[in-house]
Parts: sequence; C-alpha cells; structure tokens
Amino acid sequence: MNLLKEKILKEGEVYEGNILKVDAFLNHRIDVPFMREVGKEFYRLFKDEGVNKILTIEASGIAIGALVAQEFDCPLVFAKKTKTKNIAGDVYTSKVESFTHGTTYDIIVSKRFLNKNDKVLIVDDFLAVGNALNGLIDLVRESGAELAGCGVVIEKGFQRGGDKLREQGVKVESLAIVESMDHTTGQVFFRD
Amino acid sequence: MNLLKEKILKEGEVYEGNILKVDAFLNHRIDVPFMREVGKEFYRLFKDEGVNKILTIEASGIAIGALVAQEFDCPLVFAKKTKTKNIAGDVYTSKVESFTHGTTYDIIVSKRFLNKNDKVLIVDDFLAVGNALNGLIDLVRESGAELAGCGVVIEKGFQRGGDKLREQGVKVESLAIVESMDHTTGQVFFRD
Repeated sequence: MNLLKEKILKEGEVYEGNILKVDAFLNHRIDVPFMREVGKEFYRLFKDEGVNKILTIEASGIAIGALVAQEFDCPLVFAKKTKTKNIAGDVYTSKVESFTHGTTYDIIVSKRFLNKNDKVLIVDDFLAVGNALNGLIDLVRESGAELAGCGVVIEKGFQRGGDKLREQGVKVESLAIVESMDHTTGQVFFRD
Repeated sequence: MNLLKEKILKEGEVYEGNILKVDAFLNHRIDVPFMREVGKEFYRLFKDEGVNKILTIEASGIAIGALVAQEFDCPLVFAKKTKTKNIAGDVYTSKVESFTHGTTYDIIVSKRFLNKNDKVLIVDDFLAVGNALNGLIDLVRESGAELAGCGVVIEKGFQRGGDKLREQGVKVESLAIVESMDHTTGQVFFRD
C-alpha cells in the first residue's frame, strides 16, 4: 500500500534496536481518515474469504479492527490482556510473550463471542516475531472457528514471524513489509 | 438514542453492585454497524462545536472514538494507562482512580498530539463517578486545547459524575442515562 509506505517514510521514526515508531498515525494518534483506507485495503484482500468476524488485541489493534469490521459489516472482538488467571472458565486463553517488554501475559476472549460458526480475520498494527498473532490464532483454533487469515499494517520482515506463518499455510497480508532500517540515518527499506 | 436503550434492555446484564455488563456490543465484542450509528449521533450532537480532534482512553473507548472521528473526519488520540512514572517529560499526565478496581493509575498523552489549536471532543463508553472523564479533561486543560464537550455512550446517572460535570458548565451528552437497576429482576430504568 503506497500511501502507507509514504506515511512511514514521512512520519515514522527509527530508533536503535530496530524500533519503528509510528505513533503519529497508527497507535497513539490515529489518522482515522487514513485508517479508513487501510480498512478498505484489507477488505479488498480478504473479501472472498467469507469473513464474518474480525479479531484483534487491545489496545492498538482496536481502531484498525473497527474500521476493518466496518468494511465487512461484521462485529469486532478484541482479546484482552490480563495478568490474572482465568477463574471463570468461560474464556479461551493463550499466552503471549512480549518481545518488546520481555514479559509474558495471558490473552482472553469470552467463549460467547467466538465459536465454530465463525470465519475470522485477525488484524493487528504490527507483526514482528509473531507472538501476538500466534496467540490470537490459538484462540481461534481453541474456539473451533475457521481462520480466514491475518491482516497486518506493518510487518517487520527481518524478524521472520510473517514468513513462518506463511510457511504454515496461513494467509498473511501485510500492507507494508519493512526489510531493514538504519537508525543512524533514519532510513527504512521495504520488501518489494 | 432509542436503538441503544433497546440494545441495553435486550443484551445488557445487570449484576449486584450496580454493574451493567454490555460486553456483547460495547466493550469486548463490538457491534461495529451499530457503533457507526453511535458515531453519527455524536456528530449530530457536537457538529456545531468546531471539533478537530477526538480524545478517548484505552482500551474500550478506542472503537467508539474511531467511529466518531470518522464522522468528524479528524484524528483520534487515545490516552494510555500506565503504572510507570513519566520520565521523558514530553507527555501530559493525570491520575485516575478506578472505582471498579480500587486502584489509581496515570494516564498520559504525548504533547505532540494535543495542543492549544485543538478543539477536543472527549468520548468514552461509560460515565459513572466521572474519574476517567475528569482525568481526560485535565489533559485537555494542561495542553491549552479547548474542550468542546464529552460524549458518553452509557451514563450511570445515579453515580452523579455526569451531573457534576454539567454543573461545572461542561457539555456532556450521554446516549443513554441509566437511573436505576435491579439485579434481582435484571431491570434497567432510564432517565427521561
């Protein structure tokens, strides 16, 4: 998606440790008119998959998820992050390791909101090693729902999470794949 | 908003301690086609206020905020909850006491994303005693921006937070005001 690549080049900031900060339009301040175009692009990419539910994870996936769900005219479910063990037993749960923060947390989705009649498109803002997406895929499989695929705004290609999922046969569509970054010059290079 | 009241009566669940659970459409599973109507209703209520930015708080305000921002064709900024002290100094910050959880947390917004040229509409899913809204209003005042008002999906009228803000001259528009609930019968009564 060229508009996204232009925004990354214009508004993104590169920091040491392969950090790409895009909080000016993606995950703190949300450029909603732009994000609407993101929603339309994911619709174009997945419209033939019979999607009837969008799944994401709080917090930075929610705005994207809402604008994707709008295109599909379907509900959005967001997984909640929790440090407390599930005691109710009425949730699907998976563990996610945070690459950025070096911690592990549980993610949960109420069993009422995901089931075997669903065909689920997972969306998120970033894909790096793939821990969050793998956790969400676990929840979908636990529920018996069918996975239509994963839509990601920015994939860090060099961290391989996306390619590993593709090798497993998961349809992963990223609107921009960053192949490398240079924090000394601020440059970002995309995969073709 | 009659459609909202009908949904609360149909899909809401009342629990002891004045808890109204609406996670089937508002804050876990999001009924996006319905939430789009919510966005339009807030646009109708605030369209003459010169709003150029929507402000909300993670996580359950984000989907609403995105669909309101879409109507105003403007950006959404969401305040982040954090337990770590701000060390960078480049954020506006306020303290919020969680009535539900009995804890206090900091909320922050980057100074880059809120400033004196902004006219801000704050939106959130719930208004009870008003702690979250008061924290967000603090951030707006700290930034020098102008407050257009607050748009709330469900106000718990009996907890008085909304009326206190109105007494201070803040324009608060709630799409449904719950005046009382009865967990033994599951009944919900709205303010006229």
